[in-house]
Amino acid sequence: MTLATLRLAKNEERRLRGGHLWIYSNEVDKQASPLKTFEAGQQVIVESSQGKALGVAYVNPQSLICARMLGNGDKAFGQKQIEQRIQQALELRDTLFPQPCYRLIYGESDLLPGLVVDRFGDHLSVQFNTAGMEALREPVLAALHKLLAPKSILLRNDASVRELEGLPSEIVSVYGDSPEDVELIENGVRFLAPLASGQKTGWFYDQRPNRAWLRDLVPGKRVLDVFSYVGSFGVQAAAFGAAEVWCNDASELALEKAHENAALNGVGDRLNTLHGDAFAALRQLKDDGERFDVIIVDPPAFIKRKKDQKEGILAYRRINELAMRLLTPGGYLISASCSMHMPREELLDIVRAASRHVDRHAQVLAEGMQGADHPVHAAIPETRYLKAVLSRISRN
Amino acid sequence: MTLATLRLAKNEERRLRGGHLWIYSNEVDKQASPLKTFEAGQQVIVESSQGKALGVAYVNPQSLICARMLGNGDKAFGQKQIEQRIQQALELRDTLFPQPCYRLIYGESDLLPGLVVDRFGDHLSVQFNTAGMEALREPVLAALHKLLAPKSILLRNDASVRELEGLPSEIVSVYGDSPEDVELIENGVRFLAPLASGQKTGWFYDQRPNRAWLRDLVPGKRVLDVFSYVGSFGVQAAAFGAAEVWCNDASELALEKAHENAALNGVGDRLNTLHGDAFAALRQLKDDGERFDVIIVDPPAFIKRKKDQKEGILAYRRINELAMRLLTPGGYLISASCSMHMPREELLDIVRAASRHVDRHAQVLAEGMQGADHPVHAAIPETRYLKAVLSRISRN
Repeated sequence: MTLATLRLAKNEERRLRGGHLWIYSNEVDKQASPLKTFEAGQQVIVESSQGKALGVAYVNPQSLICARMLGNGDKAFGQKQIEQRIQQALELRDTLFPQPCYRLIYGESDLLPGLVVDRFGDHLSVQFNTAGMEALREPVLAALHKLLAPKSILLRNDASVRELEGLPSEIVSVYGDSPEDVELIENGVRFLAPLASGQKTGWFYDQRPNRAWLRDLVPGKRVLDVFSYVGSFGVQAAAFGAAEVWCNDASELALEKAHENAALNGVGDRLNTLHGDAFAALRQLKDDGERFDVIIVDPPAFIKRKKDQKEGILAYRRINELAMRLLTPGGYLISASCSMHMPREELLDIVRAASRHVDRHAQVLAEGMQGADHPVHAAIPETRYLKAVLSRISRN
Repeated sequence: MTLATLRLAKNEERRLRGGHLWIYSNEVDKQASPLKTFEAGQQVIVESSQGKALGVAYVNPQSLICARMLGNGDKAFGQKQIEQRIQQALELRDTLFPQPCYRLIYGESDLLPGLVVDRFGDHLSVQFNTAGMEALREPVLAALHKLLAPKSILLRNDASVRELEGLPSEIVSVYGDSPEDVELIENGVRFLAPLASGQKTGWFYDQRPNRAWLRDLVPGKRVLDVFSYVGSFGVQAAAFGAAEVWCNDASELALEKAHENAALNGVGDRLNTLHGDAFAALRQLKDDGERFDVIIVDPPAFIKRKKDQKEGILAYRRINELAMRLLTPGGYLISASCSMHMPREELLDIVRAASRHVDRHAQVLAEGMQGADHPVHAAIPETRYLKAVLSRISRN
């Protein structure tokens, strides 16, 4: 079967030549290849305005990103290629992680645009985030069966990006019995994560290297984990030897899980939870004269769209200032941001500005990013989103 | 004794209010406080153009950076304050590192501008890099004796910055017997570093966290360490279980030390050295059909001054391309740059551009910086200089 052709407008192949995989709808030569002639998810040959073939892509005429490159050839992309890429992704993860608990496929960065697979041992949580990847659902599932022989596969097809692609929001078990809570090990610490009812795929593996920072910092210390979710930072702190850990979250369910997770590691007696809004909780702790030696501030994205940038940055600064006021002198602060629209340097400046405002000296000890199971595609800045700064906050 | 006053020109206190410690000579109100009335190293009270006291600084009238802030008060900065700051620095390092082998004082970031102290257990290698810190030499040495009771102190006062400060270049033993080669442990691996005859203070502790990346990557693999110096990356690779390691350096002496260091860790049989220019060596290896699974490219600063930026970036790109061509498919590349004038994003782009040029897919797995014993002063961008990118280079 010959693939149809998607022709780019003049000079619009530059991004692809730089290695990026996306084509925006305004970059297509709509006379030569009207977008409405393609079906959502259809595979095509992409060519430059001069007629040079650039590779195979899948198309979604109704999305702003109207096509994403799949490979260099001129043949349809199918199970064989998918298997190769999953295999390649698997080798990387198995080199880096002692347990089969990781993001196995991180979309574009693993050259499988629109696909996310999180692995919890024998259980998989999968997202098909584009029409093109949805069209490859059967070969993807077949490849996962062949390479991993999982006990269960759950589709967490409820990401908001699916709406932009004209896809329905759904959570579906497509194989085996997906457990309500799935077990995983991260940095040597055991966790239960809510697979179908939790946030995103159930667990945020991306912070793994930044959580590992706690190992040297917390023994014997008092730790506060703000926006704790199910205790990902907090329970690790307790397991690494913190004397006392407080987890704060707006979700009671998440805090219940944090308690369960602490108990699972035999440190239930050292974990406490504080339910409610983070800003209010931090102010209350300050008024109560509480102090902590290590504080983690890992909020949800305060900047969802570019236009929220200014307000979002102020919110990040406020929450970091509140945290600094709660630190003992010489205490450690982990400040994270998962907002794609927050530049790395900006988070550093937030730490600087906050420390000036509370008259402290901030030493940046490490700058972290998403873990290696969320590799950054060197040519796709959009795949680089997580920032974490470890700083020590002392008297001036 | 009352300190003299250095008055800033109008609005020139802004950088200091942001937390920076430096005053440039063009920011001084030279009518109110002519620079030539101060002696090199003299301490002063700095005040804004409105006469508001901003703290104590030391002055060097002949340097472009004519003053550096020492503290907030209005009293001369002496041994008591120096001891406090060294103590604070010591607590940080002792929290983070299992052995007393680290940069103990990293100048401005530890609020001791112009002072560098590297610790190798009982032996210290010290740099006084400004006239102001040189003037505090006796109290600094007294504080080091009091807090650390070292066996030897060597002054490596041969950094080129001293020339800008009008200070002589000298290497002087000021206490005890500084050994020719000093022993240190980094990431659990033993090394001998040439104290007086080596580069800088004898060892580059700044790459410690980036060298730790090798632990998971190298077991059973073939590794190439380009610009290896005394084998800092290469010997660690061998100690972490690499099957075979090649170290390349232009210094025969450094390579001899690399052999000694490998032997010290019982892995002398797995380390080979290749003497000569890195570009030539990499081309030769390519012509010989050699391949490596892991390659480290950690060159000296190719960009020493801002005006070398364009040419320097090209050199970084060329050496990284050469390395990529030598990698087995799916191999790992560590690309480092210690050039302050190389922005972090630029190094990422070098990896991207090089990978495009050799038609490979680059996944960035980690972005590293200088280790936590070289903390970044949040308000002083000049203290943030080291960049390292770990990428996996696969077929497209």
